[in-house]
Amino acid sequence: NHRCPPGVTIASIKVCQAVMMSDVCVFVPVSPAAERLRYILGEDDDMPNPTLFTEMDTLQQDGDELEWKESARWVKFEEKVEDGGERWSKPHVSTLSLHSLFELRTCLQTGTVVLDLEGYSLPQIVDEIIERQIDEGMLSPDLREKISFVLLRKHRHQTKKPIHRSLADMGKASGGGARECPSALWSRMAIGIPIHIIVLPKLRNKFMKKIPRDAEASNVLVGEVDFLDKPFVAFVRLAQATTLGGLTEVPVPTRFLFILLGPTGKAKSYNQIGRAIATLMVDDLFSDVAYKARDREDLIAGIDEFLDEVIVLPPGEWDPKIRIEPPKKVPTADKRKSVHSLNELGQPNGTAGGSGGHAEDEEMPVAHELGEELAHTGRFCGGLFLDMKRKLPWFPSDFYEGFHIQSISAVLFIYLGCITNAITFGGLLGDATDNYQGVMESFLGTALSGTVFCMFSGQPLIILSSTGPILIFEKLLFEFSKNNGIDYMELRLWIGIHSCIQCFLLVATDASYIIKYMTRFTEEGFSSLISFIFISDAIKKMMGSFKYYPINTDFKPDYVTAYKCECLAPDPMASMIFNGLVPVPTDNTSSLFGLNITDLDWSQLSKKECVKYGGSLVGNTCKYVPDLALMSFILFFGTYSMTVSLKKFKFSRYFPTKLRKLISDFSIFMAIMTFVGLDRLIGLKTPKLIVPTEFKPTRPDRGWIVLPFGKNPWWVYLASFVPALLVTILIFMDQQISAVIVNRKENKLRKGCGYHLDLFWVGVLMAVCSFLGLPWYVAATVISIAHIDSLKMESESSAPGEQPQFLGVREQRLTGILVFVLTGVSIFLAPVLQFIPMPVLYGVFLYMGVASLSGIQVYAFSFWERIKLYMMPSKYQPDFPFLRHVPLRRVHLFTLVQIICLAVLWVLKSTVLAILFPVMILGLLVVRKMLDMVFSQHDLAWIDDILPGKDKKKDKKKGDKDDTKKKDKKKGRADDSKDKVRNVKIYCHQLAGLEQKKPG
Amino acid sequence: NHRCPPGVTIASIKVCQAVMMSDVCVFVPVSPAAERLRYILGEDDDMPNPTLFTEMDTLQQDGDELEWKESARWVKFEEKVEDGGERWSKPHVSTLSLHSLFELRTCLQTGTVVLDLEGYSLPQIVDEIIERQIDEGMLSPDLREKISFVLLRKHRHQTKKPIHRSLADMGKASGGGARECPSALWSRMAIGIPIHIIVLPKLRNKFMKKIPRDAEASNVLVGEVDFLDKPFVAFVRLAQATTLGGLTEVPVPTRFLFILLGPTGKAKSYNQIGRAIATLMVDDLFSDVAYKARDREDLIAGIDEFLDEVIVLPPGEWDPKIRIEPPKKVPTADKRKSVHSLNELGQPNGTAGGSGGHAEDEEMPVAHELGEELAHTGRFCGGLFLDMKRKLPWFPSDFYEGFHIQSISAVLFIYLGCITNAITFGGLLGDATDNYQGVMESFLGTALSGTVFCMFSGQPLIILSSTGPILIFEKLLFEFSKNNGIDYMELRLWIGIHSCIQCFLLVATDASYIIKYMTRFTEEGFSSLISFIFISDAIKKMMGSFKYYPINTDFKPDYVTAYKCECLAPDPMASMIFNGLVPVPTDNTSSLFGLNITDLDWSQLSKKECVKYGGSLVGNTCKYVPDLALMSFILFFGTYSMTVSLKKFKFSRYFPTKLRKLISDFSIFMAIMTFVGLDRLIGLKTPKLIVPTEFKPTRPDRGWIVLPFGKNPWWVYLASFVPALLVTILIFMDQQISAVIVNRKENKLRKGCGYHLDLFWVGVLMAVCSFLGLPWYVAATVISIAHIDSLKMESESSAPGEQPQFLGVREQRLTGILVFVLTGVSIFLAPVLQFIPMPVLYGVFLYMGVASLSGIQVYAFSFWERIKLYMMPSKYQPDFPFLRHVPLRRVHLFTLVQIICLAVLWVLKSTVLAILFPVMILGLLVVRKMLDMVFSQHDLAWIDDILPGKDKKKDKKKGDKDDTKKKDKKKGRADDSKDKVRNVKIYCHQLAGLEQKKPG
Repeated sequence: NHRCPPGVTIASIKVCQAVMMSDVCVFVPVSPAAERLRYILGEDDDMPNPTLFTEMDTLQQDGDELEWKESARWVKFEEKVEDGGERWSKPHVSTLSLHSLFELRTCLQTGTVVLDLEGYSLPQIVDEIIERQIDEGMLSPDLREKISFVLLRKHRHQTKKPIHRSLADMGKASGGGARECPSALWSRMAIGIPIHIIVLPKLRNKFMKKIPRDAEASNVLVGEVDFLDKPFVAFVRLAQATTLGGLTEVPVPTRFLFILLGPTGKAKSYNQIGRAIATLMVDDLFSDVAYKARDREDLIAGIDEFLDEVIVLPPGEWDPKIRIEPPKKVPTADKRKSVHSLNELGQPNGTAGGSGGHAEDEEMPVAHELGEELAHTGRFCGGLFLDMKRKLPWFPSDFYEGFHIQSISAVLFIYLGCITNAITFGGLLGDATDNYQGVMESFLGTALSGTVFCMFSGQPLIILSSTGPILIFEKLLFEFSKNNGIDYMELRLWIGIHSCIQCFLLVATDASYIIKYMTRFTEEGFSSLISFIFISDAIKKMMGSFKYYPINTDFKPDYVTAYKCECLAPDPMASMIFNGLVPVPTDNTSSLFGLNITDLDWSQLSKKECVKYGGSLVGNTCKYVPDLALMSFILFFGTYSMTVSLKKFKFSRYFPTKLRKLISDFSIFMAIMTFVGLDRLIGLKTPKLIVPTEFKPTRPDRGWIVLPFGKNPWWVYLASFVPALLVTILIFMDQQISAVIVNRKENKLRKGCGYHLDLFWVGVLMAVCSFLGLPWYVAATVISIAHIDSLKMESESSAPGEQPQFLGVREQRLTGILVFVLTGVSIFLAPVLQFIPMPVLYGVFLYMGVASLSGIQVYAFSFWERIKLYMMPSKYQPDFPFLRHVPLRRVHLFTLVQIICLAVLWVLKSTVLAILFPVMILGLLVVRKMLDMVFSQHDLAWIDDILPGKDKKKDKKKGDKDDTKKKDKKKGRADDSKDKVRNVKIYCHQLAGLEQKKPG
Repeated sequence: NHRCPPGVTIASIKVCQAVMMSDVCVFVPVSPAAERLRYILGEDDDMPNPTLFTEMDTLQQDGDELEWKESARWVKFEEKVEDGGERWSKPHVSTLSLHSLFELRTCLQTGTVVLDLEGYSLPQIVDEIIERQIDEGMLSPDLREKISFVLLRKHRHQTKKPIHRSLADMGKASGGGARECPSALWSRMAIGIPIHIIVLPKLRNKFMKKIPRDAEASNVLVGEVDFLDKPFVAFVRLAQATTLGGLTEVPVPTRFLFILLGPTGKAKSYNQIGRAIATLMVDDLFSDVAYKARDREDLIAGIDEFLDEVIVLPPGEWDPKIRIEPPKKVPTADKRKSVHSLNELGQPNGTAGGSGGHAEDEEMPVAHELGEELAHTGRFCGGLFLDMKRKLPWFPSDFYEGFHIQSISAVLFIYLGCITNAITFGGLLGDATDNYQGVMESFLGTALSGTVFCMFSGQPLIILSSTGPILIFEKLLFEFSKNNGIDYMELRLWIGIHSCIQCFLLVATDASYIIKYMTRFTEEGFSSLISFIFISDAIKKMMGSFKYYPINTDFKPDYVTAYKCECLAPDPMASMIFNGLVPVPTDNTSSLFGLNITDLDWSQLSKKECVKYGGSLVGNTCKYVPDLALMSFILFFGTYSMTVSLKKFKFSRYFPTKLRKLISDFSIFMAIMTFVGLDRLIGLKTPKLIVPTEFKPTRPDRGWIVLPFGKNPWWVYLASFVPALLVTILIFMDQQISAVIVNRKENKLRKGCGYHLDLFWVGVLMAVCSFLGLPWYVAATVISIAHIDSLKMESESSAPGEQPQFLGVREQRLTGILVFVLTGVSIFLAPVLQFIPMPVLYGVFLYMGVASLSGIQVYAFSFWERIKLYMMPSKYQPDFPFLRHVPLRRVHLFTLVQIICLAVLWVLKSTVLAILFPVMILGLLVVRKMLDMVFSQHDLAWIDDILPGKDKKKDKKKGDKDDTKKKDKKKGRADDSKDKVRNVKIYCHQLAGLEQKKPG
């Protein structure tokens, strides 16, 4: 046990203080490391330093030849060369040993540190370093040549191998060598030629893309040599970043150089030190320090600061062999820069309770706000003008930003959704209004309204569509007018005009601001309900095919002879034929069609004809249709599950990211194509999509323009104000709630929203559609969400291992416009569209509903996630932030209230009361208001948003609280420093005491 | 900046040395900490210390009342009380800050350490500690009362809340309080009563099960108080573990007590220190130290040793807020106990290349060995007797270990597989042998052979079944005998007898030992092929239903009237009827059935009858069967996907583990039940499982016993030796390869295998079955694997967060016997079984094939996984060990060879050559042998096993290498220590130098 002479006292205490950092020797008031760093980093923070790419090369004996072999690299995370696997490992977090960090620290303390060296080539730099070491007496001059020789050996990088190598390998392996020697070829190629002469062809490999353009390299060289008896350490910062031949794998100029050569036998230890400095070099804070360091002490302070913030895993709870996958997010350097602030540490995870709720309060979710777009201006049309002012500058970009491959898939997806919607609603409307508005009107209306809206509205991501409440309204209206002898189309026109005017009034008075009172509770209730309706509609329509095509479950294959369905002539006719008497037919049917009924071969008639001519269908198969129902089910379910699987494929490990993204983007298209193909292959007559092929109103007795006067008495024009009010509320609620959902901050929209502008255009379109006798349109929640989902952008991850971030949505008008133009020209696309079976489209509907319900990743603590919690034992529940802060039973209670509200709405929705749907949404607002009495604001802040009114109150309260807290803190700090002074004394006293006790 | 007097030199250097540990101040030869620990831990290692449960309580102000509130607990991993969430967090790895560890170290250096205190109650212990502190002058006597008061406050644990609390909460929340105060009830219940008086009702909660029985508790109490101006620290080890009232959440006696009270303002810091000591207490190594420590210095050495092994995460690459999930496995304390060995560190992951391949060689996979069961004894029946000797002791446990709920699901699963197999093979055999062996024989044979084999064999987990090659052999044999006028049954009997004798010969000569040459390559080839056959058979059978029940794809629902199928009388008959002439029928048909053909109402006949009586079927629906094909598909695919989903359900987060395990175990049963139900609901006449209901041979003209003599010429008895040889090889290969696959070490079987015994019984059964005219049986790979999978055991995880470990397979004979007894009595189960549609069973088959192919978790680097690698970009590939050591292209090449072999086998298998199947497996062995020339032994060791011959050679070589290596190492070590001596001098010199430079 060697002990140092007593003379080193002060220095060693300094070391100790520094190593142990500020609080370590608990009681030193301010860490000298932090003080130092604050000084140098504070200098000029405006010019950010270049990103560092670090490469670590180790010295390898290859036959007789020494060479530097790349063994790991860091852009942000570590990638190691798998020596046996001859490939890069996955990027992972560099786990270091505390050892290696302390060893590195010692290395920097004892080795040569050269800052701002004017270097232009490796030999010159190496000479410089060696000279310094010799000057300082750390190196014997006779080792000069040897060290220089070793440091100038060639560098071999881990790159793609040429193909012929594997043949060479094979030949060698057959020789029975126990271990391949992967460098044979290389060594033959370039024996002994020093590195700076071989200028490697610029490896413009894919990896370059992962390194930022302005990056500089830091090279770490470690190795063991037999002629040294103590380590040769050098840390060099060049004055200018210089490309030093093939030193670095990629053509990035080198700025830093760390060299560690040591005596043989400790290669592992050297490697660890190399990894430690490499990890430090890519650390945001330390690299900053490295760029700005004035001397050795600054670097050491940097290490100390790094040590100060490291996260320690206990050896018994973690297997050091596990490579830790890079986390989704790492704290930014700014947050970490504790040196800038008062040395406040980033606390490791389990802040283990503690009396202070500080940490938690700081994490509180930001208060609910819908942005200044919904402010009440108080001026006439103030909101509308602001909206226009806000959207106008984006107008050009709204078009050119649409040019992207993703747009194609979005257009296809939404187009199919829109025409399916147009056809189903068109059919239903046709039924409800005796074809005054049919499929043709539906197509035309969708195309017209959609195009105009997407062109001029405030939020072009919203997709307009017919909705359920409107359908029910039209139905009631038609019945009312028929029963009361009022002309339906004219009445409807007037309602449209009134409603339009009412909308303008709402716009002019900025009435949309009341949407502010809508919190997540209401949004979720509304969008979940709409999603459920979508899902249930899709399933209902599917199940419908079991009704249209009943299955003969009693069919016994062997008794196929017993099954038939015959068309028999009506009885009197039959008897007449029997009697040979054939009187001239007098009934309507035969005369109408100019057919002699006796000429009919009844057995040749189809089912429809048979019924038409009054024949009777006799037989046990008449009411059954084989195969179609089951085939429809297979198509429906197949389309749905294939879409889901392909969507998920994005998260699989197969194929390159881009291909997977493409597959995921086009999943719906591919699923539709597959099942259209399957349907064609089997060839069954499944129900197909049929679009109108001629441009004319569905009902022959109406034209394209509805005239406002002439058919109804004058008071109807005024009285229609009342139903118009209902329509206005309905449209207002539907439109604005959908808009709120689309504009959610999770979607990261940057172009702002335009509630007033939207409503203005919806009003205009109301009037236009009424004049043209087309259906009314309003924002469709589910399709709009699908639209947004299909336009999501993710960052292309930069450093290997970094997770792609959700960047936002491709906000533009192009996809919307294209969708609706396509809808308009669908009349000409009929030959193509007729191959698509309806069950496939229902499958797409089901997918839309489910996707909008489970609410794609972004909505992390959505209603649906909370419902899932009911079925999860708490230990398996995901680590949602709100679960850390709100008791589970409160969360459950909140979810239960939502479920009950939904159930009530669902029941009401299924009755005629559905027309009051928008009013019911107002009911949700009231329920939410009442929840304020049951839940504390703290809980609601986590699981919902806080209502605007409460918000202010809360802010004030919080403010008060903060004040007192701050005061407490200040006091605490003062106390602290007092304590520290005292404690340092005690500590030193203690040390002295120890010393006295054990003077050995 | 306070500096200590120069007197403390030695002490501070010691601190520095200790803190920095052995290599940290790189150059201190042997770490004093390690030396110390080696001494105390070496004492008596035979008595393991109890496991420690650690609870950390923090001091909380609750209104006017102070109380200790549980804030975290550790069994192995940390569980924190979510303060807001009022619940336990998920168990996670305790991430500490380096700070807190150093602070803890200082605390233990300066605070009171009392070891082996005789304590019986908390007040007494507290008094004792306070007295000591006062004695040592560390505490002013007037604080005695205050500290004692604080330390004896009551303890509140985090347990389940009574339900009425949530009502109380609600009432409170409606008052608008910003934050709930969850302790209101408690404080009202127990104001001011010191803890040792409240004896809490023994909380026999579920958590107790997670703590080992002999566990002892360590309690950590931290908090801030306003009357102290420096920390009050105490670490107490009690002489006897004592239950100190309600100090601990669970009734576990307390052994250790750590108290930290400090001045206000640093609560966070105290918490971190508390977490640090708690984490240390559950560390295997440190808890050992804590139990055996003789003084304060030992504890500090323990911390130093802990620090020595911690894993450090760089702050820029990890977010400290992330709670790290416990790893699947942690290194055992023994491996970590570097103190026992020569301070060799567990190296963190990235051993970043380095010149030494040491680490890698150490990790090399263990050599391929099949155990002593396959040793060539050289004695007559040596292997057989060894097998019996090995298996006999397990015989009783083979029965009583079968009583477990899992067995039921296994029996149901395998039973359904077996009867499906019996029926399909029975049907095929019946076709091939003109019903000499039909479904009845198949059932009987399966039951008989299976029961006998499971009862007496060496490996009762193997399931016997008919296999493809045997089927083909029987087919050829039957055709041969029919063409040559030889009696089939008698010939078959003689082949059976010969084959039996040949098996006995193989058993007597221990011939099974050649199986040793079978490596993973061959195993995988064989089992993959069998799996593919299973999958393709299942799909083929399914597709068959599209053939049996053709779909009328031209069906137009509207023209239902045009579809019929009529049975028309044969033409002459028709004309006769037409002419009124009815002659007495002379044809065979009508006379045979004694029916007057004229009495037939042809239109009432079924399809079959019509054809039988010579009628003709006329019409466009005759050849079509509606719905059945599609329904079959739905049943098939539904069963398969439901089984897969339910199996996966085990890994979901929903429902408690036990329920999920149950669902997963019974997934096949539940899927079958569901789809049987669906089939019943729809009521279509899908093809059902039909088992024979009468106990009699399928062919009426054969009896149950085949006589050996009489029907064939004498030379046939001898000549049948030749085909018997083929059968023997076939059986030998099939049986033993399946056995090798079942006995794989990944399955962790403990009862040993019995290759010779198995073969003996297969031979016996050959003969018996031949005498009874039943099919021959041999091990079925896929079903055997399914059997094992359904019997897998996993540990019930003990500490929260610990992963359940695969423990092995429930090895017993009961499930097998039950399966085959059930098969035997299936004749009586017919009324139940007849509800099961065949497509459902094909779905089960498909599942079996896919499951055995993808080879459940255990076979980590299986063929299938390697095929997947082809489609994965290397950055997404899982971190398989072999990928770290073998270049990817070599892995791909190896896989490619396997794929080609399989393809060749597959093609051959589809021809008549299939009978040579066993010989082809031998071909695989040859291919594998040739691979030795293409691949290096190093690569093969990772991706395959090494052949026995090579193995030895390699061993020798490795031995040589090791020797030299050892020598190198020794030399290196000697050099090392020399270096160290020198370096220490330099280091000290350095320090001195520094000191001279900066004398401030």
